[in-house]
Amino acid sequence: MSEPLALAVDLGGTELRAAAVAPGGQILAQIDTPTDATAGPARVIDQIVALIGEVRARVPDMTFLGLGIGAPGPLDPVAGIAIAPPTLKGWRDVPLTAILSDRLAMPVMLENDANAAALGEWRFGAGRGLHSVVFVTVSTGIGGGVVADGRILHGQRGLAAEIGHMTITERGGRCFCGAIGCFEAVASGSALGWRADAATRPGDGSRLRALAGSGAVTARHVADAAREGDAQASALLAEEARWLGIGFTNLLHLYSPEAIVVGGGLSVALDLMAGGIAATIIERAMPAYRDVPVVAAALGRHAGLVGAASLVLEPGSTRIVEAA
Amino acid sequence: MSEPLALAVDLGGTELRAAAVAPGGQILAQIDTPTDATAGPARVIDQIVALIGEVRARVPDMTFLGLGIGAPGPLDPVAGIAIAPPTLKGWRDVPLTAILSDRLAMPVMLENDANAAALGEWRFGAGRGLHSVVFVTVSTGIGGGVVADGRILHGQRGLAAEIGHMTITERGGRCFCGAIGCFEAVASGSALGWRADAATRPGDGSRLRALAGSGAVTARHVADAAREGDAQASALLAEEARWLGIGFTNLLHLYSPEAIVVGGGLSVALDLMAGGIAATIIERAMPAYRDVPVVAAALGRHAGLVGAASLVLEPGSTRIVEAA
Repeated sequence: MSEPLALAVDLGGTELRAAAVAPGGQILAQIDTPTDATAGPARVIDQIVALIGEVRARVPDMTFLGLGIGAPGPLDPVAGIAIAPPTLKGWRDVPLTAILSDRLAMPVMLENDANAAALGEWRFGAGRGLHSVVFVTVSTGIGGGVVADGRILHGQRGLAAEIGHMTITERGGRCFCGAIGCFEAVASGSALGWRADAATRPGDGSRLRALAGSGAVTARHVADAAREGDAQASALLAEEARWLGIGFTNLLHLYSPEAIVVGGGLSVALDLMAGGIAATIIERAMPAYRDVPVVAAALGRHAGLVGAASLVLEPGSTRIVEAA
Repeated sequence: MSEPLALAVDLGGTELRAAAVAPGGQILAQIDTPTDATAGPARVIDQIVALIGEVRARVPDMTFLGLGIGAPGPLDPVAGIAIAPPTLKGWRDVPLTAILSDRLAMPVMLENDANAAALGEWRFGAGRGLHSVVFVTVSTGIGGGVVADGRILHGQRGLAAEIGHMTITERGGRCFCGAIGCFEAVASGSALGWRADAATRPGDGSRLRALAGSGAVTARHVADAAREGDAQASALLAEEARWLGIGFTNLLHLYSPEAIVVGGGLSVALDLMAGGIAATIIERAMPAYRDVPVVAAALGRHAGLVGAASLVLEPGSTRIVEAA
């Protein structure tokens, strides 16, 4: 086995993960550590360099094509600059790829975390072999990445596919972004949890409150209760499926993907919502878009890591190609 | 002048237009004729061949790179097939580029009319020199085309950028597509006309009814009355600007263009709505997207024709580039 590997880093505000990834997407070695997110970029970059050293030591005698990094946006994927990630204190216009390619003496490529996860699912997961894929994460918020005609869709400053903040309604509470009616504000796991919490009271005898104990009802409790057959939870999931279906219909009309791949925490309940999502799409999408499958992500929390690896394994698919 | 030209056809359900276009986008000869839209594809293809012959006769001794065609969707731009254009009777999976390249003995390329107009504005009009542009036509309906990272965004079967049918609200009447809350159903010129018509009554003394005479009030009357300073018309345009601003904010978040270029009939009133659109974008868009200009299209009804020409003048920008 002398085929060169990729190194990959998934830089999160909580966890820093590094791996050695084979050309087929297999993770051959992985080490995770808490991100020292409040210590500033110099310290975190030291963490990355040290972690990469440890990963390399676990796969001795291998050669490496380079390092791919998934990091929180906003960032400039072409210039390789982390602009102002809100979860990393003190980061402001950090030329991450230049610094790390200097320290590690190898090519380094950068992509935002949602796009990295989209790349992972496209290259090695549920979107494998397709040409156009929309990847949506539904958890605390809603994020996503779009593969359009065989490339990640970047747009100006890499800011395309801010899926969670498309307006789809006048209902729901104010989104953290300040607007009303964002897809995320009505269809995220948080929004489902709020609806479930508001629909129940402590001690009301509901299955949801029994699962929640003394805490708030969350999307996870709704999914668990619905899977047990609880009618109230099933109704809440049906409403959630309808919101997701409305948003997904927009994504079909706007990007015309061959599949919508759903990841994030709430994707564990995708099977329970599939019928409701499909019914909403059939009701609302124009005929040519109705047959597009909505499928669960295949790689779970590894999507971003193997997607980051694909930045160096298959670099042509991720860069802006100039018009001829 | 021996630089080769492009031939271009704008195939509409009402009008068929053909032109010879210079590499800089200048139309050197143009002939229009009513489309024989009910006579079936063979007759219309004969019309195209005849019209191209006439255009060529007007620019003698020139060489031609090929023919670019803008035609109503749905169509497959890669295979060159008109799938089922609703305004052309009897057209069903017509291999238009194969037939015409055989008849004309030159390369022929096909794009849907909205994308052709987007290409025209991008290459030769208001989006010139940019890398990512969203082109929106606001008239009877709302359509559009997206240039993303230097290429037309196609998606599966070329169906991306069906901008008019993104859901943005629960308000408004049912869209012709069957859904409620489509951007087109609340923000098209038709929707503005309906609101203006519903807000007035024949003989009510309003400026709008004075302009409309015995007919219905239309978007054009609203624009004209607002330009005269009529307060009712200005209020209707302000509401229209708000709907456009909501939809445009979605387009910013989803495609992250460097500019939104607005064409179509209602773009004549864009200057009157610019303040309202900008205020809505500043209110609703996330900070990184707020500085993107919304500008009027520059080419008017010629956008589709010169865009079709650009399919053969600059073919690299319009084809799907396979991932490396």
